[in-house]
Amino acid sequence: MSAQPLRLGIAGLGTVGIGVVKIVQRHPALLAARAGRTIEIGAICARDRSRPRDADLSAYAWEDDPVALARRDDVDLVVEVMGGADGPAKAATEAALAAGKDVVTANKAMLAHHGNALAEAAEAAGRVIRFEAAVAGGIPVVKALTEGLAGNEIRRVMGVMNGTCNYILTRMESAGLPYDTVFEEARQLGYLEADPSLDVGGIDAGHKLALLAAIAFGTRVSFDDVRLQGIERISIDDIRRAGDMGFRIKLLGVAQMTGRGLEQRMSPCLVPADSPLGQLQGGTNMVVVEGDSVGQIVLRGAGAGEGPTASAVMADVIEIARGTRLSTFGQPAATLAAVQPAAVAAPAPYYLRMELLDKPGALAKVAAALGEAGISIDRMRQYGHETASAPVLIVTHRTTPDAIEHAIGAFAATGVVQGPPVALRIESV
Amino acid sequence: MSAQPLRLGIAGLGTVGIGVVKIVQRHPALLAARAGRTIEIGAICARDRSRPRDADLSAYAWEDDPVALARRDDVDLVVEVMGGADGPAKAATEAALAAGKDVVTANKAMLAHHGNALAEAAEAAGRVIRFEAAVAGGIPVVKALTEGLAGNEIRRVMGVMNGTCNYILTRMESAGLPYDTVFEEARQLGYLEADPSLDVGGIDAGHKLALLAAIAFGTRVSFDDVRLQGIERISIDDIRRAGDMGFRIKLLGVAQMTGRGLEQRMSPCLVPADSPLGQLQGGTNMVVVEGDSVGQIVLRGAGAGEGPTASAVMADVIEIARGTRLSTFGQPAATLAAVQPAAVAAPAPYYLRMELLDKPGALAKVAAALGEAGISIDRMRQYGHETASAPVLIVTHRTTPDAIEHAIGAFAATGVVQGPPVALRIESV
Repeated sequence: MSAQPLRLGIAGLGTVGIGVVKIVQRHPALLAARAGRTIEIGAICARDRSRPRDADLSAYAWEDDPVALARRDDVDLVVEVMGGADGPAKAATEAALAAGKDVVTANKAMLAHHGNALAEAAEAAGRVIRFEAAVAGGIPVVKALTEGLAGNEIRRVMGVMNGTCNYILTRMESAGLPYDTVFEEARQLGYLEADPSLDVGGIDAGHKLALLAAIAFGTRVSFDDVRLQGIERISIDDIRRAGDMGFRIKLLGVAQMTGRGLEQRMSPCLVPADSPLGQLQGGTNMVVVEGDSVGQIVLRGAGAGEGPTASAVMADVIEIARGTRLSTFGQPAATLAAVQPAAVAAPAPYYLRMELLDKPGALAKVAAALGEAGISIDRMRQYGHETASAPVLIVTHRTTPDAIEHAIGAFAATGVVQGPPVALRIESV
Repeated sequence: MSAQPLRLGIAGLGTVGIGVVKIVQRHPALLAARAGRTIEIGAICARDRSRPRDADLSAYAWEDDPVALARRDDVDLVVEVMGGADGPAKAATEAALAAGKDVVTANKAMLAHHGNALAEAAEAAGRVIRFEAAVAGGIPVVKALTEGLAGNEIRRVMGVMNGTCNYILTRMESAGLPYDTVFEEARQLGYLEADPSLDVGGIDAGHKLALLAAIAFGTRVSFDDVRLQGIERISIDDIRRAGDMGFRIKLLGVAQMTGRGLEQRMSPCLVPADSPLGQLQGGTNMVVVEGDSVGQIVLRGAGAGEGPTASAVMADVIEIARGTRLSTFGQPAATLAAVQPAAVAAPAPYYLRMELLDKPGALAKVAAALGEAGISIDRMRQYGHETASAPVLIVTHRTTPDAIEHAIGAFAATGVVQGPPVALRIESV
């Protein structure tokens, strides 16, 4: 065993940081056996030293400033678990690299926005940045893509990667509660970010998707090209009616390389209720990777929480302690290709829900609008109603998002469709 | 990029070997980008040069003898995909290590029997042996355990790791066919090993379990301590009746560290039909890992076949090409603990099926035998019958395998139980 311990500087002592401290304290022998050297904590740092925390931190040097932590001589590796795309997290990461230190981070926002530049800075400094904890919590999907499936041309990466959204959607279904009620429950349970649109708007999951896409397709991280659609407009009716037809609604991220470029989208989709993605309940995450040789690989586990996220951080720490040196996104940053975003998403069947005014010929007008947009109907249901409008569900055959948009525009002109229809893609999984 | 290509010597040109050749031929740029150097084939070797093969091999040097292949100057890394616990595979592996070459192997039997010695030989020679393809085909589970979950004290590793057995069991259920018929189908489809007991006797899956256990628990590989039970005695009645009670029968491997030592068993078990393991159909594999921090991680994918297995081989090749140097079982062989096998398996509920003679008091005698063995009954069903005996199903509360064995002995003495009962563990998953 190497005589030199690896000394961590932990920047951030929230849930994840404390989780890392606990693992280091609980398993010194196990970590040393696996890493080939002892793993110690050199120094720690957080905004508020006085805040009560669920671990004994008295043995560790304290810094108020994460940049100062990153520069300490008794820190070999910086664990950045503060969060935030910019500010202290980025400053500490840059300071660590400049000081010749490797960085392990759980920070999806920072890497989604600055991953290319940080990867280049790491390589220029001869250092590594690893980020297993940034995507899907404890599921070792970054390593699976970077290493375990590296012999494959990746066809598609999909996943449910925001546990809060999946909690909301499954709770709406199981309890029969409307979105607003469950959203409020989730807020009270502390499941939501301070800015909830990070969760329910798909931004957080979109960050993760952009990171996986970079590894999968050897492309520069391009979060701006992720088409985002949140779950805010999903109603309990949508969930029930999708269920009637054998589907569940999931906030699904999909990245795939097509003949027209790279497609990255994070949006509520219908998936078969009996598929692994369809069966995913509560806060659990799932990532599906499809490769030309391996076929489909499904990975499932806790996407958040102290233990799972700290487990992912420690995997990176052990990797570095062992002497493994991987490029941030699996290949040198300079060799990552510029993203050619696909102008249009690949065709798919769609689910449409609308309120149809109870007038003679109303359904004919909707059907005609679909026909004119070149969309053919697979299944249609009109539900009984006691109001002036009837819920109508349509499942189309494969069509393009453009055609759907065109049809929705035409619906407005018919004068029989009340309010904006809900249009959700049906993803084949 | 390193100027030096990595030159493979491929020993074995069956399904897996040809799969590796195809990936190397199909993706030179992708492999070079990810590995940081070009990956080439230096030489190849198989028993029969004249056999027609589904790849153009004309550019590669040929050897008839895998040991000679391993010693060639134009081979940097030996890909051992011949199979067989001993003989040429072991000789070639040893020759490669002695010649200062790394080895990537898909050979579960060799590592299950000689893994400790080979790991020691590799370390003595300063070389590595990697074996992602030996366990669960394309699923990157060796890397997940060795790296992605290395920060965890592993509690339990479970899995369905023999696709042929899972095919037989799911086909029996879906087609309502008896074991013998489906076994014969599987044979004709080429799904069975030349010695079918490797599959249906649980030996092949037991090899895989022993390898995962070594990584998970930091113990020496100890295949001899795997308690093996095959699927040969599972009847279509068992499958149907387990189904009536919400279970499916799977050939399930379980390794767990208990207070009484390491438990390794490969046996048909009942699992809830709606659990991920219960829902696994056909030839697909699934591995479930439970760690103290990460909770439960589920990995699912193709467990065999040209593409998936070659994908796993290439992951190891790329790992070595990148300069990553891992100990065979995740820590130096000398630090692996001797296995203390658990004398008894952990308690669990059991499923019992027996044929009860149609005599007054018969059921009372069986119930009394269970009671005397300290086993209490959770559920019992006696089915209608037109023969002299009635099928009786019993689901017990948690009990020990010893108590079950004791009760089965006592059943024989009652004179009312016809033939040996079927006893299957109900695994909580």
